[in-house]
Amino acid sequence: MRQIISIVVKNNSGVLARVSSLYGRRGFNIDSLSVAATDDPDISRITVVTRGDDYSLEQIVKQTKKLAETINCYPLVEEDSVCRELLLVKLVTASFDNMLINLSDRYGAAVLDISEGSIILELCATSDKIDSFLQDINSGADEGHYYVKQVCRTGITALRRGVNSY
Amino acid sequence: MRQIISIVVKNNSGVLARVSSLYGRRGFNIDSLSVAATDDPDISRITVVTRGDDYSLEQIVKQTKKLAETINCYPLVEEDSVCRELLLVKLVTASFDNMLINLSDRYGAAVLDISEGSIILELCATSDKIDSFLQDINSGADEGHYYVKQVCRTGITALRRGVNSY
Repeated sequence: MRQIISIVVKNNSGVLARVSSLYGRRGFNIDSLSVAATDDPDISRITVVTRGDDYSLEQIVKQTKKLAETINCYPLVEEDSVCRELLLVKLVTASFDNMLINLSDRYGAAVLDISEGSIILELCATSDKIDSFLQDINSGADEGHYYVKQVCRTGITALRRGVNSY
Repeated sequence: MRQIISIVVKNNSGVLARVSSLYGRRGFNIDSLSVAATDDPDISRITVVTRGDDYSLEQIVKQTKKLAETINCYPLVEEDSVCRELLLVKLVTASFDNMLINLSDRYGAAVLDISEGSIILELCATSDKIDSFLQDINSGADEGHYYVKQVCRTGITALRRGVNSY
């Protein structure tokens, strides 16, 4: 079961190593993680996506809270949250043809770069939509007009809806 | 000096802890990091933003390449790359008023959620544009119609332009 955990931490040196070691030691594989400063440069927010049942989730949240740097740590219920992800994908292609234009339009993907022989597309959406976009891109590639050279995803970043949530 | 490093790794358990410990031990503070699987679920791409001179950068890239899981590791020159970031920001406000609508339109931010008393905006852009958007959001907040409750950024994710780059 996919679990999303939001962790607010002090920006001490080595905090990310401590958080990721904790997850490793407890047997949680990290599917994705993103971390950056909040509007306070001394405080960062880490969003971790992992897998596990609700009991294990509760345990790892408790343990994360015990780290000296942790200001707050809580699981996000997907239905109550806004969960988004950013994808960059580089295609090797002679031209940005109609099939790619239609596909990009359908998903709302943006063309960020057109270089000689390659293009970079960007899609900011839910993970499911990004998966589906990549699947369609790969199916299209089978027809031989282009191929996928590189894929870069940020992993999920998320906020709970509503004024009272932390 | 801001440095962006792209690392392609095998998805072994604990790989993120090893990468982030290495940066910590070598005195590199991680400004932001994002990691997620590529189109191959066994291979992930990590994008690290750190600070340091070119000599230190060369050293840390060499050391990252020595990790058993590292498939590839290279610094990204910003001028030759597409560098993007995703921001979610929650504002506590009674209404999505004209001032916020104008600000969102100006930056191309999307409204992802309107709950009672709060809204969540999304902006997918360069880091500079996101900084500037947050600055304008904060200036607007001083006028008292809303305040910033939460900020969540993915940190930079980036791909080099052009067909021949890895």
